[in-house]
Amino acid sequence: MTAKGPLSGITVVDLTRVLAGPYCTMMLADMGARVIKVEPPGLGDDSRQFGPFIQGRPCYFGSVNRGKESIALDLKSEADRAVFEKLLERADILTENFRPGVLERLGYGWEHLHERYPRLIYASTSGFGHAGPARDRPSYDMVIQGMSGMMSVTGPSGGEPCRVGISIADVGSGIFTAAAVNAALLHRERTGEASRVDIAMYDCLLAMLESTISRYTMAGEVGGRMGSRHPAIMPFEAFATADGHIVLACGNDKMFGLLARALGLPELIEDERFRRNELRVANREILHELIEERLRGDRTANWLAHFDAAGVPAGPINSIDEALSHPQVAARNMLISVTDPVLGPVQIAGTPLKFSTFEDPPTRRVAPDLDQDRRAILAELGLA
Amino acid sequence: MTAKGPLSGITVVDLTRVLAGPYCTMMLADMGARVIKVEPPGLGDDSRQFGPFIQGRPCYFGSVNRGKESIALDLKSEADRAVFEKLLERADILTENFRPGVLERLGYGWEHLHERYPRLIYASTSGFGHAGPARDRPSYDMVIQGMSGMMSVTGPSGGEPCRVGISIADVGSGIFTAAAVNAALLHRERTGEASRVDIAMYDCLLAMLESTISRYTMAGEVGGRMGSRHPAIMPFEAFATADGHIVLACGNDKMFGLLARALGLPELIEDERFRRNELRVANREILHELIEERLRGDRTANWLAHFDAAGVPAGPINSIDEALSHPQVAARNMLISVTDPVLGPVQIAGTPLKFSTFEDPPTRRVAPDLDQDRRAILAELGLA
Repeated sequence: MTAKGPLSGITVVDLTRVLAGPYCTMMLADMGARVIKVEPPGLGDDSRQFGPFIQGRPCYFGSVNRGKESIALDLKSEADRAVFEKLLERADILTENFRPGVLERLGYGWEHLHERYPRLIYASTSGFGHAGPARDRPSYDMVIQGMSGMMSVTGPSGGEPCRVGISIADVGSGIFTAAAVNAALLHRERTGEASRVDIAMYDCLLAMLESTISRYTMAGEVGGRMGSRHPAIMPFEAFATADGHIVLACGNDKMFGLLARALGLPELIEDERFRRNELRVANREILHELIEERLRGDRTANWLAHFDAAGVPAGPINSIDEALSHPQVAARNMLISVTDPVLGPVQIAGTPLKFSTFEDPPTRRVAPDLDQDRRAILAELGLA
Repeated sequence: MTAKGPLSGITVVDLTRVLAGPYCTMMLADMGARVIKVEPPGLGDDSRQFGPFIQGRPCYFGSVNRGKESIALDLKSEADRAVFEKLLERADILTENFRPGVLERLGYGWEHLHERYPRLIYASTSGFGHAGPARDRPSYDMVIQGMSGMMSVTGPSGGEPCRVGISIADVGSGIFTAAAVNAALLHRERTGEASRVDIAMYDCLLAMLESTISRYTMAGEVGGRMGSRHPAIMPFEAFATADGHIVLACGNDKMFGLLARALGLPELIEDERFRRNELRVANREILHELIEERLRGDRTANWLAHFDAAGVPAGPINSIDEALSHPQVAARNMLISVTDPVLGPVQIAGTPLKFSTFEDPPTRRVAPDLDQDRRAILAELGLA
């Protein structure tokens, strides 16, 4: 295992900022690519300003830029443009998440770069994509969450629309971009041809809404907020117990049978109202009550042990600290360590991309300070 | 453009069921791979039972299985196992999302298949992954949403924990799996070596929680529910207007300046309480009030037009039907048509994976009926 990952030997010149693009290039770095983050001089990536800060170190920036190098270049200065172009000569991929048109105005649009660097893959992540009437609209995660319908289905039944608790438009589009970049690398490896990848956050959230879309286009149902409930599966939601909540997720008749027996309610199995999932969905209020009445008789921890033994899919509603303390997190290396020059070792989330052919190191290179790798990069380019 | 996508010529033997795995293999099909869905005889994939149904046709199943073929095989029958093994001989990738151990007990674990089919990539998607103390736990999206902390940060401030309005653990892990499979294809293309990919839904949600994790590990802050607010950026949330809500997303000082001017409140720019994002976060209640007071003076549509002209990132909170009616959806081909044998043409979400080197067809092959391609597949294998 000498290679660091399936993308070993691949170089990414990374103009991305904030979250969607940097999330993608973090994934590429995690898979072994060399990622050279090119930031504007002065403040660098906007997200360096997002708190919280510990002894001046930005937690947000650190969480999505590990494993990268940094050089500050002003793409409007001739000298820096020369450095940037030297980098492009050696790069396999250019990533960017500017508003469409920004790089074209700098002379670095796809058409131009493709002609000059025919093997360079060019990956863009933007709010609405590089085509269509909305292409020039400014966009951030929140705007896309609102416009795409994602907020309309997230939140309590009858209550306010809620943001998904993470920046799902940024993160989701970042992962889609990584998938597309890997496909483009494969295509180039097989044919020599470089692609331009054009990923839109709005497209990604529509695609992630999957059956919510077909429910509307095929059945005419406009989904709404349902708290913790699933629109098409029952029981698949949170229930109250004697001391809190428990999640049950019984997606088929067999699981429902196991649940009914584990609850001491085997008569539910033969009940005509609950014999199939679609009947359970149609009669969900009464079924919810019947299950919850029983669950209120004991504490969550006891029910979890009981359901575990019975093979019923169930779980608690954990806070972040509880989620991270599960022994599975250590076993899967999902908290890794980076060594911050000021703070020393700090933990951040690991990568979920696990390959039998590569190690999954428990430490990674800390996110770079702005321009930290200038000297080494310039030397490598023969410019220092 | 003769190839259908970057994965043209790649064959996937697909044992996945319900959502996480099928979402991944839909992406692989969208990128040009041939996906042969192997289902249990009788009812097939569990999700064929999930409603709603239109004239007996399942909307849910149809939304994540387009572009695939189907053959029903009983992996406990000798005759069907022989067919399955013939398929594996010709396959590039085996995908599965059974509970760990299920395929091993059938004699189709990674070690065994890797020895017999050394070029076969083996991609597993499961709740907790194929290692660690929780590997054998039954799991569904809802369980993972609850356990991972995702529900603890989704929902109204002070209110009930909510499910993300989509099956984010399934969909997210499906996209990560596709990204990993593409990387494994690249690695095999470069070295001849096949990888086993092991993706866990729990890992994926922790990774998608990104700065929520580092906020806890670095700053000790356990995130909670904040309705539509972002923990680290302000203003980046929904505000009330005269007739509904509007989302504003001003991630840096420049955007905040544009907003303040567009609101007719230029004095906010120099206000010491709001000069930098971290100060705006610290003083978010008062700033929210100041902005909302002004926004309540006009209707959402008028504000949107005004902010659009001013270059301020803003948007409505759309329902699904509103989201799909945006002209950008058609321009980006994000509603495509499949021809159902009973219903005729129906629309489902398109793919967000856009490559300059490949067409993005406005129609795709409809999701298969159970076992629909048996005859053609057996003939191709020389078995009929």
